Amino acid sequence: MKIAQIAPLAEAVPPKLYGGTERVIWWLTEALVDLGHDVTLYASGDSVTSARLVPCSEAGLRLAGINDHAAATLAMLDRVLREADRYDILHFHVDLLQYPMFRHLAGKCLTTLHGRQDLPDFWPIHDAFPEKNLVSISDNQRAPIPQANFIGTVYHGMPDALIPFAPAGGDYLAFIGRISPEKRPDRAIEIARRAGMKLRIAAKIDNADKAYFEERIAPLLEGADVEFIGEIGDAEKPEFLGNAAALLFPIDWPEPFGLVMIEAMAAGTPVIAFANGSVPEVIEPGVTGAIVSSVEEAVDAVPFVRAIPRETVRRAFEARFTAHRMARDYVALYESLAGLGTLPPPAFAGDAFAASRGLDMAGAGTYG
Amino acid sequence: MKIAQIAPLAEAVPPKLYGGTERVIWWLTEALVDLGHDVTLYASGDSVTSARLVPCSEAGLRLAGINDHAAATLAMLDRVLREADRYDILHFHVDLLQYPMFRHLAGKCLTTLHGRQDLPDFWPIHDAFPEKNLVSISDNQRAPIPQANFIGTVYHGMPDALIPFAPAGGDYLAFIGRISPEKRPDRAIEIARRAGMKLRIAAKIDNADKAYFEERIAPLLEGADVEFIGEIGDAEKPEFLGNAAALLFPIDWPEPFGLVMIEAMAAGTPVIAFANGSVPEVIEPGVTGAIVSSVEEAVDAVPFVRAIPRETVRRAFEARFTAHRMARDYVALYESLAGLGTLPPPAFAGDAFAASRGLDMAGAGTYG
Repeated sequence: MKIAQIAPLAEAVPPKLYGGTERVIWWLTEALVDLGHDVTLYASGDSVTSARLVPCSEAGLRLAGINDHAAATLAMLDRVLREADRYDILHFHVDLLQYPMFRHLAGKCLTTLHGRQDLPDFWPIHDAFPEKNLVSISDNQRAPIPQANFIGTVYHGMPDALIPFAPAGGDYLAFIGRISPEKRPDRAIEIARRAGMKLRIAAKIDNADKAYFEERIAPLLEGADVEFIGEIGDAEKPEFLGNAAALLFPIDWPEPFGLVMIEAMAAGTPVIAFANGSVPEVIEPGVTGAIVSSVEEAVDAVPFVRAIPRETVRRAFEARFTAHRMARDYVALYESLAGLGTLPPPAFAGDAFAASRGLDMAGAGTYG
Repeated sequence: MKIAQIAPLAEAVPPKLYGGTERVIWWLTEALVDLGHDVTLYASGDSVTSARLVPCSEAGLRLAGINDHAAATLAMLDRVLREADRYDILHFHVDLLQYPMFRHLAGKCLTTLHGRQDLPDFWPIHDAFPEKNLVSISDNQRAPIPQANFIGTVYHGMPDALIPFAPAGGDYLAFIGRISPEKRPDRAIEIARRAGMKLRIAAKIDNADKAYFEERIAPLLEGADVEFIGEIGDAEKPEFLGNAAALLFPIDWPEPFGLVMIEAMAAGTPVIAFANGSVPEVIEPGVTGAIVSSVEEAVDAVPFVRAIPRETVRRAFEARFTAHRMARDYVALYESLAGLGTLPPPAFAGDAFAASRGLDMAGAGTYG
């Protein structure tokens, strides 16, 4: 299948530093190539891929100091549109700028929504462009926009060797992510203290969260039972997660997916997660962790999840959250799209476009 | 002429508080209606206009707490596209989201660029969409993007009665605007002190500029010769500007237009401005003020501009910077657009669209 993947230009694919979306696109693209598909990746010029790369900016825009990405994204989308007939499927990972431009090709387009959908900012797009095919990264992510045309949920997956199985585990609780009010590191500290276990926190502190860290979290870090080790990279994750007894994921927001949960599971480390967002879909209680609704329940869950064999956790990861599983799910969606195999002739596409626009195409016979 | 004005949804037209772009759109729309044109305004639902209003959001998005305006803007543009055949001219005041959607109608579209163009963020749009008709608000604004298709410069204008002529003037120097490093209030203070004159500062302090104000400006405010009166509204401007001996505009950035200069001129108050951005186009030395390149030159200019009869300044405003002059300039551009009066039939528009996209429309004869 001839597939175009259209990535945000904010970060390279894979990203140099942060960038969950770009990491997932990287894993998906590599897996699709591995499955034998003809894949083209539209992304920043410093991207590295086994697919054919179409560079659409010199480098990832954020690290290049570009704050407004709309112009570069529209230029990329214009290039994709000009080359659209080369592909069976156009798979977009940019939020919304593509909908008007690709309306007449909506049948072979799909867009994965990578972010939260509970903020009203994006809602007008769903009424204006109802024909677009959307993919959610959890069923829960769809809740705020029931009117949107979702054709499936595809959970993220990662390469199965990226974080190897760590059969022994360890004796501390782990917290990894950003220090921010919605990630609730304060809850993690309270859970660990009440469970009588050491907590290790691997987290970055964005500028926006500096005041929160100084005022709310730093005072809680006194004492030998909490270790704040700062931000860690991909190379350090296997050890950090593999040596943990459990990962704490005490979130307070509608997390659309939560990659860190499957990273822990890859290591065989169970997850104690609060029942928000995607959590009930990602965590299987007693298999890969526990789902809780309070600090008390989280404390009680510690011995419960430590009793789960780490092999069980790893096996669930391999069954549900590898990049190849993700790629196969997407291929099934690509194949399900109505237009595929029976693509309308160009005239039909233009006609549908005109009709959808309310344009008067009565004189169109003069085309020939 | 049937004209659509498409405004940003950030603020109402006119804006409830700040919003230079929306104020200019308001003035332009009222003047076009006054000149007898059939004008439709696409804007937020709390806008007030003599034109036909098409409400595209309930209220101005910024004050409604919406941070990302792309979805609402795309929905508005989609509505404009569906109704495009009602108009002879589509005049956009949103920066760039319209270019791909209206490519096939580019002949009857124009976009006024209201912001600075020296940041690289927006440059990719000009290579990707070269056919779009652009209007600059000063010639200098174009300098960073020589490749862009500008069809004219139209200086802003304001209703001639908004700030009445104040023949007497006064004895202080005035500074009005935001407290920010690029507006250089520090220079204004130094100029006034060295000229031996009182300075009155009417300025808002954005959150982003709080630290700059506290660290750099507040210490300079000690003493009876500088009065900081905070932010003022439209109702207070006539008195503040009309009672000044001169306005100081000591900017340090490529100001694309600078409404405050013509507000001062409306009152008959001359302007001492640094030679950046639009300044050499807006200020006529010896007629409406002085153009300087250093604090020394600004100090020397104070007696020079005080010698200009205030009637001379007001007359220059009336000749060059009224809303009716702005509206007539735009109408001349509307009339100059190639497609006007000889609009291509819908089929041609679609054909040009297809050709520009590289789409294969060979089978288009099957349309009929």
